[in-house]
Amino acid sequence: MDNRPIGVFDSGVGGLTVVKEIHQTLPSESIIYVGDTARVPYGNRSAETIITYTKQIIQYLLDQNVKAVVIACSTASAQALEVVKPLFPIPIFGVIEPVSQASTTLTQTQHIGIIGTKGTINSQAFPHTIHRLNPHLKVDSQACPLLVPCIEENITSGLILKNVLHLYLNKFITPSMDTLILGCTHYPVISDAINQYIGREINLLNPGTYLAETLRHELLTQSLQSDRLHQSVYQYYTTDEPSNFIAIADNIFSQPISSLTQKINLI
Amino acid sequence: MDNRPIGVFDSGVGGLTVVKEIHQTLPSESIIYVGDTARVPYGNRSAETIITYTKQIIQYLLDQNVKAVVIACSTASAQALEVVKPLFPIPIFGVIEPVSQASTTLTQTQHIGIIGTKGTINSQAFPHTIHRLNPHLKVDSQACPLLVPCIEENITSGLILKNVLHLYLNKFITPSMDTLILGCTHYPVISDAINQYIGREINLLNPGTYLAETLRHELLTQSLQSDRLHQSVYQYYTTDEPSNFIAIADNIFSQPISSLTQKINLI
Repeated sequence: MDNRPIGVFDSGVGGLTVVKEIHQTLPSESIIYVGDTARVPYGNRSAETIITYTKQIIQYLLDQNVKAVVIACSTASAQALEVVKPLFPIPIFGVIEPVSQASTTLTQTQHIGIIGTKGTINSQAFPHTIHRLNPHLKVDSQACPLLVPCIEENITSGLILKNVLHLYLNKFITPSMDTLILGCTHYPVISDAINQYIGREINLLNPGTYLAETLRHELLTQSLQSDRLHQSVYQYYTTDEPSNFIAIADNIFSQPISSLTQKINLI
Repeated sequence: MDNRPIGVFDSGVGGLTVVKEIHQTLPSESIIYVGDTARVPYGNRSAETIITYTKQIIQYLLDQNVKAVVIACSTASAQALEVVKPLFPIPIFGVIEPVSQASTTLTQTQHIGIIGTKGTINSQAFPHTIHRLNPHLKVDSQACPLLVPCIEENITSGLILKNVLHLYLNKFITPSMDTLILGCTHYPVISDAINQYIGREINLLNPGTYLAETLRHELLTQSLQSDRLHQSVYQYYTTDEPSNFIAIADNIFSQPISSLTQKINLI
């Protein structure tokens, strides 16, 4: 038994969808969340920059005595996970591997799609991971850089979102594709709109769901799970002044966390 | 005569619209441009953070021996100009004051509109400046946070942009408004689409135009202007790896600057 918290970090507010999944799967685990809002978005930044930011935040979480770290940001998972894993003495998890594993099992047509930020898509991290697991699958990727700004503007339905989805998905979603990975933590917020736009049954995979399952399994294996009766505590930190983070968390992610969020200085 | 360069900085690529205006008005002046692409966008950040970034970049420009600095970013002009002006031994210009002055002269109906990022609009810098010049004018503001992502996605015409403009401008532009300030450096790129959306004659003011005029006047007054025969040199620096900056500069701002852009480390 180990009641120390799990560190979760994301470039901004999006990782709250991952926190939600961890909470559902592991309700006794405490979480310390860092949203790097002073430097969001990571999506279009270079690998070098993202690795620097990731190291700083993991070190901060380690200083808070976390027992494990979840990189909830797809871009940072894609660009930094393998580099930072050997540098720290605790398990570090990314969001790419678990959902990639699930996608290879779930697809019947052998054709998987991935949508994400430019950084995640350009990194080819999802296709590489999926092809390592099964080189015979067809994998297509599509960067959707307008989706995060839309979601943060609370545009989660309606004409603008429909047009933006059309721009990215019209030619991308083909009849043979039966599995689509939501390769950015913001996207689960608009999964209904994406489902509606596609208009037929498709496996819409939220990486947070599979990350939480992997985390549950690993904590158990390494005897790091919290006591079942442990009263979990959630703490939220941002690297910029938290009002914008709180507003988006409240309005869009339906997680009222205002009283809990504090600013920290990383740089 | 003073052939030292002018420093121009912006949070990203948007300030290139200001460089364009300075180049047209002052073709003999050399420019050192810094795009803070590692920390873009400034729009939703706190004043404290923006002031820190602004100080760092002005110090960097000063170390490059500039004779003056232009803060091409509306957000930084709004939140940081007055704080940083007394801290440095060279003239520092922002983009708020010159266009605000022009708007008060140009409006016939006494009704001015301003569009910009959340940070600029929340700061109230344009209305405060305009009301200091003429307290009787009616001034309305509208934050348009989706416009920059659209422009950087090369969506500068068509249905999505029209819907986004409708979202922000439909109720905002009233018949009595005859002057609209483009309060973000990206917006001049879509001035045609904005004009077309509004569908009637309106003064669409690009802050860069009036900044360049102010700069010309001040350099002359303080005997800081370059020799007319001076061969101007343009240098571009970014704080993140420059490929994305170069792509947007080439495609959207029609300024092919690839060979000239280098990364610098500020943090």
